[in-house]
Amino acid sequence: MVTGESRVGSAGIGREGIVDCDVHPSPRSAEDIKHHMSMPWRDLYKGGGRGFFNNPAHTTRLDSTPPDGAPAGSNPDFLREQHVEEYGVAYAVLLPRAFCNLHPDPDFGTAIAAAFNDWLANTWLEKYNHDGVFKGSITVAHQDPQAAAREIERWAGHSHFVQVMMDSGARAPFGQRHYYPIYEACERHGLPLAIHPGTDGMGINVQPGPGYPTHYIEWHTCLSLGFQAHLVSFITEGVFERFPGFRVVMVEGGVSWLPALMWRLDAEWKALRSEVPWLTRAPSEYLGDHLRLTTQPLERPASDKHLLNIFETMDAGRVLMFSSDYPHWDFDSPTHAFPKLPEGLRERIFSTNARSFYGFPA
Amino acid sequence: MVTGESRVGSAGIGREGIVDCDVHPSPRSAEDIKHHMSMPWRDLYKGGGRGFFNNPAHTTRLDSTPPDGAPAGSNPDFLREQHVEEYGVAYAVLLPRAFCNLHPDPDFGTAIAAAFNDWLANTWLEKYNHDGVFKGSITVAHQDPQAAAREIERWAGHSHFVQVMMDSGARAPFGQRHYYPIYEACERHGLPLAIHPGTDGMGINVQPGPGYPTHYIEWHTCLSLGFQAHLVSFITEGVFERFPGFRVVMVEGGVSWLPALMWRLDAEWKALRSEVPWLTRAPSEYLGDHLRLTTQPLERPASDKHLLNIFETMDAGRVLMFSSDYPHWDFDSPTHAFPKLPEGLRERIFSTNARSFYGFPA
Repeated sequence: MVTGESRVGSAGIGREGIVDCDVHPSPRSAEDIKHHMSMPWRDLYKGGGRGFFNNPAHTTRLDSTPPDGAPAGSNPDFLREQHVEEYGVAYAVLLPRAFCNLHPDPDFGTAIAAAFNDWLANTWLEKYNHDGVFKGSITVAHQDPQAAAREIERWAGHSHFVQVMMDSGARAPFGQRHYYPIYEACERHGLPLAIHPGTDGMGINVQPGPGYPTHYIEWHTCLSLGFQAHLVSFITEGVFERFPGFRVVMVEGGVSWLPALMWRLDAEWKALRSEVPWLTRAPSEYLGDHLRLTTQPLERPASDKHLLNIFETMDAGRVLMFSSDYPHWDFDSPTHAFPKLPEGLRERIFSTNARSFYGFPA
Repeated sequence: MVTGESRVGSAGIGREGIVDCDVHPSPRSAEDIKHHMSMPWRDLYKGGGRGFFNNPAHTTRLDSTPPDGAPAGSNPDFLREQHVEEYGVAYAVLLPRAFCNLHPDPDFGTAIAAAFNDWLANTWLEKYNHDGVFKGSITVAHQDPQAAAREIERWAGHSHFVQVMMDSGARAPFGQRHYYPIYEACERHGLPLAIHPGTDGMGINVQPGPGYPTHYIEWHTCLSLGFQAHLVSFITEGVFERFPGFRVVMVEGGVSWLPALMWRLDAEWKALRSEVPWLTRAPSEYLGDHLRLTTQPLERPASDKHLLNIFETMDAGRVLMFSSDYPHWDFDSPTHAFPKLPEGLRERIFSTNARSFYGFPA
């Protein structure tokens, strides 16, 4: 804890508490965001919905609505009580859902991102952050990488912004060159890039599959496929060679697919390395220095052994960082989402990996 | 063997020989196909290339060109010698590469499919099939499912056509309703549907990822993602409930991704089953009755144990069927592609699963 207080979490990590790498703060209403916008964006911005592919039942935990009836995730006191204190969270990495990359007009996307950053800094990261639990993400609109880089510059050095974030929904895989101003800025400031799902196949973003799905269950299941394609692109395009200090954390994209994808890509590379001569090592060998995955939604096969086998195969003690996705409907509880883990592995996934990745005190 | 001859394969399966579920016969030239076309298609058809995303080195094994210099896979005698006899292949399931689903005009696509079927039946399945080793696939163009169903009717009952095939490249996931005439015809005639990659992101087919990839290695690695999306679509749309006798074999789409995808989809279904009320069991429970995967290109992690763990997890003894992809560049040798398997498992993957699936003699 940055405050030095003792905090014994029920998740059993001890006085320092766990790190939750995916917590979603919400504005109370679109007015909170419009307040930080100039014209014409203030008139245009309506907040909220992404369009299609919404959970037909509920998008947030039914018990996460604060007592005042405001949106889930909009009340820092209630979030502290229900989540931070309940589970002994030492650091909650906040990822606001700006949905800024939906818009065809890059200036509008950039304005939404900037307004969310102003709002987050003023509220959760400063006004409501007396104990320093909340760490923020600099939202960028990847439609305009140069503008995104300027937005990163605007916030780099802020003591509570710990990463850059953008949505996985895209018009081109993330290894491609027009994105590089973003990665260059991330590397320059030592800020990892978090990639979060949610705008895939919406607005101007293509659906990362063979056409549009039909139901939310199909869309949501297949979100992990877009992450896989982005990762292959990052590696094969040589992004980690060009930006050796650049690090990526894939948030809420699934976990267990990693070994199968890397086996496949490593085999392809053995035969096709002449196509990507900038790679100086096998594709899977870039993961340790450049990639982390957050755990939610953690796959839970009927047999814990099968999951533990995958953990061993993927070197989970190095690559995984715990996340809950609070307050969303598919929240992973720190106390119930995992099978029993060896203590050292649990400590790494719930605490030390993220502390090391983000530079939090050990 | 349908001829009753003794055949001891070097792959060690015994006198009956192995079954290879992915062998590619080729016309000697476009003229072989044009010969079966009427106008205007005969004038329009040029054969060959798919456009972008070709292996920059070579698309077929360098040693697979027949002595007469004709295209790899175009000489049945040479294919018999180099592959069937070399490995003791009892049945070679042939999948011609018609690329018919690239074309915006569905009548052209249907004409190409029909010409390939005429050519395959006349040559490999009849003229060159004295020993009955060659089993064929009825190519259909999924742009026009009603015409595809008629093409299936035209060949159903032929003693050597054992399945219907179409490419994974598509404009919509395969669970969607407009495809159902194809599945209805497959079910009526007890013919499985083989899905093979190769036209993904080409012609009228969307790229099954977040935009177009850059290199062949990226495109080829991510082919498996399109298969995963199609499988999720088949299941969630209820295709296997609507057509209880309908069976799918995913050819050359990868293997090791299956457990991670099914864990994820099963978990989604627990929360979202109200969206897909037609499902009467958990998604993964449809696999046994309805899905097989062919093995090539088999993932080979550094540790055989990791692959064998995945095999156990995915019930490989039920779901996998061996394929070589002869004569393509990433051919899997029956004698070298696999780690040492328990004998019962090897027998199932290399022989009995496919015999049972296609109705070949045990």
